Amino acid sequence: MAEAQGHEAPGAPTTVAVLGGGQLGRMLGLAGVALGLGMRFLDPSPGAGAGAIGTLLTGAFDDPDALARLAAGATVATYEWEGVPAGAARAVAATGVPVRPGSRALEVAQDRLVEKELLRTLGIPTAPFAEVEEGDPEPGAALRRALDAVGIPAVVKTRRGGYDGKGQAVVRSPADVDRAWAALSRSGPLIAEGMVAFRRELSILAVRGIDGEVRSWPVVENLHQDGILRVSRAPAPDLDPATEAAARAYAGAVLTELDYVGVVALELFDDPSALRVNEMAPRVHNSGHWTIEGATTSQFENHLRAILGWPLGDTAPRGVAAMVNCIGALPDPAAVLAVPGAHLHRYGKEPRAGRKVGHVTVVAADEAALEGRLSLVEELVGGAEGAAPGPPGP
Amino acid sequence: MAEAQGHEAPGAPTTVAVLGGGQLGRMLGLAGVALGLGMRFLDPSPGAGAGAIGTLLTGAFDDPDALARLAAGATVATYEWEGVPAGAARAVAATGVPVRPGSRALEVAQDRLVEKELLRTLGIPTAPFAEVEEGDPEPGAALRRALDAVGIPAVVKTRRGGYDGKGQAVVRSPADVDRAWAALSRSGPLIAEGMVAFRRELSILAVRGIDGEVRSWPVVENLHQDGILRVSRAPAPDLDPATEAAARAYAGAVLTELDYVGVVALELFDDPSALRVNEMAPRVHNSGHWTIEGATTSQFENHLRAILGWPLGDTAPRGVAAMVNCIGALPDPAAVLAVPGAHLHRYGKEPRAGRKVGHVTVVAADEAALEGRLSLVEELVGGAEGAAPGPPGP
Repeated sequence: MAEAQGHEAPGAPTTVAVLGGGQLGRMLGLAGVALGLGMRFLDPSPGAGAGAIGTLLTGAFDDPDALARLAAGATVATYEWEGVPAGAARAVAATGVPVRPGSRALEVAQDRLVEKELLRTLGIPTAPFAEVEEGDPEPGAALRRALDAVGIPAVVKTRRGGYDGKGQAVVRSPADVDRAWAALSRSGPLIAEGMVAFRRELSILAVRGIDGEVRSWPVVENLHQDGILRVSRAPAPDLDPATEAAARAYAGAVLTELDYVGVVALELFDDPSALRVNEMAPRVHNSGHWTIEGATTSQFENHLRAILGWPLGDTAPRGVAAMVNCIGALPDPAAVLAVPGAHLHRYGKEPRAGRKVGHVTVVAADEAALEGRLSLVEELVGGAEGAAPGPPGP
Repeated sequence: MAEAQGHEAPGAPTTVAVLGGGQLGRMLGLAGVALGLGMRFLDPSPGAGAGAIGTLLTGAFDDPDALARLAAGATVATYEWEGVPAGAARAVAATGVPVRPGSRALEVAQDRLVEKELLRTLGIPTAPFAEVEEGDPEPGAALRRALDAVGIPAVVKTRRGGYDGKGQAVVRSPADVDRAWAALSRSGPLIAEGMVAFRRELSILAVRGIDGEVRSWPVVENLHQDGILRVSRAPAPDLDPATEAAARAYAGAVLTELDYVGVVALELFDDPSALRVNEMAPRVHNSGHWTIEGATTSQFENHLRAILGWPLGDTAPRGVAAMVNCIGALPDPAAVLAVPGAHLHRYGKEPRAGRKVGHVTVVAADEAALEGRLSLVEELVGGAEGAAPGPPGP
């Protein structure tokens, strides 16, 4: 049974229904309320952060009643999490409310093997990958065959359900294979991916309108730690124009192939031999938060413009920007806001180890001015996290 | 009795209580939710637009129960309308919740005579003004004496309660005096103001922190029509640096004199003989809406930073911007958003003649690029208003 909190924006003629109500939904909501849209969210958690910015229905994604209430009278529906069951998107679409992007984008993004195979079909380089076949009577034999195909070192991943480095095991030598098998064999189908010697991680965010127009923001440089995004810099410093062009071409090919409407993110490996796509997220993305202050149109506004059939906004950067995630703890707001060009975003979530609870974006006119500001912000954010209680012990 | 709608942002440790829940409160709320603040509003209308962005308490500003519920547990309180009774601000302050800016700023801004006298004390030029003394046995005689003092042409205004051109009568010749007296004599105490031959209307927005630091945004050029702001351009084109400096000095003097905390707006007449202050608004202001996209820190965020005792943000412009009010009707969103650099804001209000229901801000790198975009937006907004139903006939 779904419980409603909040209420629709008064007089709003257009309602956007969102599957998921976390911080991405909350930031979509901030863009939506500015545009005069009514925002409605469905999330299993009654404390979901998007409740601050619209109607929050509390219910499971497989609850037909909750899905019907989410869809009722909505102009369009979308999702803010790629873990939403494709069946939920199909159930909403069955009520006559268009779901953008569609359920196929969800299905592709939810299965690493299907995703990689799509990229291969489009001629887009990826890391070497191989399916770990199921049903082999000898434990681990199928994994060994897959690892033979992709080479070691490799990463073994669950095909479904992993995020932020979860559901993964690294195989650096043959001795690691049994450990990886033990860790993951009960987690469902697996894929083996050869490790790529990349120089750095990049991402590109792009948006496609209902009319097929594609726009993309500048390629971003991302720094991960423990499998979680820590810092994004936009535009990516010292980026080869050919790499930028390849990233745009890859995003355009994926969007067109999926007849996609809305924002997509492609995570990329900047490998000297080829720019490779690591994975896609069929939604607004953490590495695009800088666009709120750092681009003419934010990823959130452009996602809404796209799914409503409105013209896409200019994706040009405004100066240079960097975004620092706050993970597990929030820094002192007064200290952060004393940094010139710093913008603090807090998601209204209880701080907990490993949880993204906010971010800080710093903008400046050029790289030289950005550098010092970014260092200050990193120190403040890192200090807060250092002081926060760690994960519970064994 | 106050009725609550919406709910506080989950996990938000800091709650800002706002007297008033119109579009200014709504835009304060958008800035506040991004910062992770809980936003709570009190407004007499259950349909007030800020309900989309926080807890909306419905109640009168003189309802002690409603004021107590607004204040309960809040970190700080503020107001988004200068018509809020000063007694309401005092009642909230009496609960121990600081009200910023304080009740004195309200009292000054609510009485044109007190306001002008304060400006005179600070040596800030205004239009010539004279109190219309009350209690004269001969109808209109006190008004004639005041008009003699300020000269004709003049504007007769109610000392309290007028806004957007309401509560005013223009006297261009002695024959107009009786009409002005008839129109306004039952509206409370009056003030006569000599008309100033100004070149254009300007405004300056400034913010003062708890530590006394003052920052101001660039001076803005404003175009009014029928007493309502239509277009603001920021920075004001072709502005003499001495005029900019005078505006900043006036704002600083007023803020310091009132020991003010938060954003203030001064409406200015650009008179070749002297820059004159027309009136002050002790709150975020329509002529500052461009700061959302056109400045590093918006007036809304800086107001919140100030009242929370946080450092003020950079007020530098980002390129050039223009804001067009949508009055009585909203333009086609898709048409507006097709204009490069255009940002649409809709307030969730029922369109009604003379009512501000939204605005469009256009940003560009320079004046030359802005010009064409602004013309397109003005045409779209004006066309929508032309098509809207007019005010009811007699």
